[in-house]
Amino acid sequence: MSKLLIVGTVAFDQIETPFGKTDRILGGAATFIGLSASNFSIDAGIVSVVGGDFPLDYIKLLNDRNIDTTGVEIVPDGKTFFWSGKYHNDMNSRDTLITELNTLADFNPIVPEKYKDAPIVMLGNLHPSVQSAVLDQMTETPKLVVLDTMNFWMDVALEELKEVIKRIDVITINDEEARQLSGEYSLVNAAKKIHEMGPEYVVIKKGEHGALLVHDGKMFYAPALPLAEVYDPTGAGDTFAGGFSGYLAKTEDISFENMKNAVIYGSNLASFCVEKFGTERMLSLTKEEVTNRLHEFKILTQFEIELT
Amino acid sequence: MSKLLIVGTVAFDQIETPFGKTDRILGGAATFIGLSASNFSIDAGIVSVVGGDFPLDYIKLLNDRNIDTTGVEIVPDGKTFFWSGKYHNDMNSRDTLITELNTLADFNPIVPEKYKDAPIVMLGNLHPSVQSAVLDQMTETPKLVVLDTMNFWMDVALEELKEVIKRIDVITINDEEARQLSGEYSLVNAAKKIHEMGPEYVVIKKGEHGALLVHDGKMFYAPALPLAEVYDPTGAGDTFAGGFSGYLAKTEDISFENMKNAVIYGSNLASFCVEKFGTERMLSLTKEEVTNRLHEFKILTQFEIELT
Repeated sequence: MSKLLIVGTVAFDQIETPFGKTDRILGGAATFIGLSASNFSIDAGIVSVVGGDFPLDYIKLLNDRNIDTTGVEIVPDGKTFFWSGKYHNDMNSRDTLITELNTLADFNPIVPEKYKDAPIVMLGNLHPSVQSAVLDQMTETPKLVVLDTMNFWMDVALEELKEVIKRIDVITINDEEARQLSGEYSLVNAAKKIHEMGPEYVVIKKGEHGALLVHDGKMFYAPALPLAEVYDPTGAGDTFAGGFSGYLAKTEDISFENMKNAVIYGSNLASFCVEKFGTERMLSLTKEEVTNRLHEFKILTQFEIELT
Repeated sequence: MSKLLIVGTVAFDQIETPFGKTDRILGGAATFIGLSASNFSIDAGIVSVVGGDFPLDYIKLLNDRNIDTTGVEIVPDGKTFFWSGKYHNDMNSRDTLITELNTLADFNPIVPEKYKDAPIVMLGNLHPSVQSAVLDQMTETPKLVVLDTMNFWMDVALEELKEVIKRIDVITINDEEARQLSGEYSLVNAAKKIHEMGPEYVVIKKGEHGALLVHDGKMFYAPALPLAEVYDPTGAGDTFAGGFSGYLAKTEDISFENMKNAVIYGSNLASFCVEKFGTERMLSLTKEEVTNRLHEFKILTQFEIELT
């Protein structure tokens, strides 16, 4: 089975949206990436850290989906990373209420032997130095390294971020972050500038407006599936990254044509993620539902114009 | 040749964007619709009004593109509608600086005999009572009536707008306006509510984020072509409407499948409109450029996933 190495947070989230408020529930970038990637029959392993307060049930839940957690360090007397946020009525913006780094504050990632030759590496949103430290441990040069990040790291660790960006193949980033990182307003120009920083492929995530893949002057655009209700956008970007990298790990085909499909799979899986709070929808997701939604994406985007 | 009846403003615009500022130039909804529709070999006729200050050159420019202007009333001692606006740096919002209705204030539209049996009618953005008055004059029930409107009419003439909306088949409206008209935030729900007001088809224009066609639970999404530079968004929505209605007039096929193509043509033509100030880009546009850009739209949106 194809290996996918995932690094990112495994965390507690507490979320408030116009539809309600949760207790502390399972969250974290690596969690969403792993659950999304587990929809492909691959061997996915997570590198992360949690505290002694992290329930074994959650570890079991990941293992049950064939996600290897031997790389998830448990700090018995530490506490798990905690994030709490509140979404505004339009669901496009949110306030972070609480961020407790806890065990994440001095996390030193250790890649299990088994995953040191993983062909696809998915560096989830985390301190760029941690992302670099994971790449340092690879014994084989990965076929493809995908990195997700956010504006926070541009504010507090821009140099480290630029260093790791030099070493990767694909960056996934949202539109505002792409503008911040590049200093360009037009996403076409932003992608060009970011491309010059290292990554051959730039994926700009536009939330409810879809995702844009840019490579060598070529562009591919996947819309988000228009939904009647979005309950909770938390984890949608990570779920996109998990579907994207999981599909590429499954197929081991990193051509532009196949990467288009990876973007569609990422968008497909992210469209489920937002339908319920936290990981709930991803945990009940069936293969049939994913396939049906691929049909919906085809209907939504495909047209037949005879060109003369 | 298939007839397309267009109603809308023919106007002077003065535009300021981060890229520069124009003098009084040719503008108006019907102008942009007509220029866009003229890319299809159809018989398009405009119903509008201008003052004695309107240059004959502009009339000739429309006639040269096979746009019939016998329905454009000239009020010799009146002045032409004038709009002046300034776009913000993000190009997504603008301030209206001046609106002088002039001859438009008491415009009583008269549809030329020749266009009273037009199968496709494009009601461009104007007072909804004027839009209704045009429909009243049709001697044959049109195959398809398309209406474009804006938030301004929802604020000042909501009842008249609701009346004319009952009589049309397709409404084109932007996302914020769809939310205002329906009271629904989700565009899926907004389209459903607007559908209940009359139109079988709802086209939601999302500017740089593309356009969504909704009909009877089916959705089709056309992205806007990502552009390195947007010089002036003025008229992009009208150009979309002109491409949409022009293609439908040309093909006289109002099936959902063909309407998808009309949305792509509308997006295609709108993507040119914004590349220069006012109508400038539309006036230099060639058939070859339109065809090449259709190829770009295919590359941008089409993918091959084998569904099992």
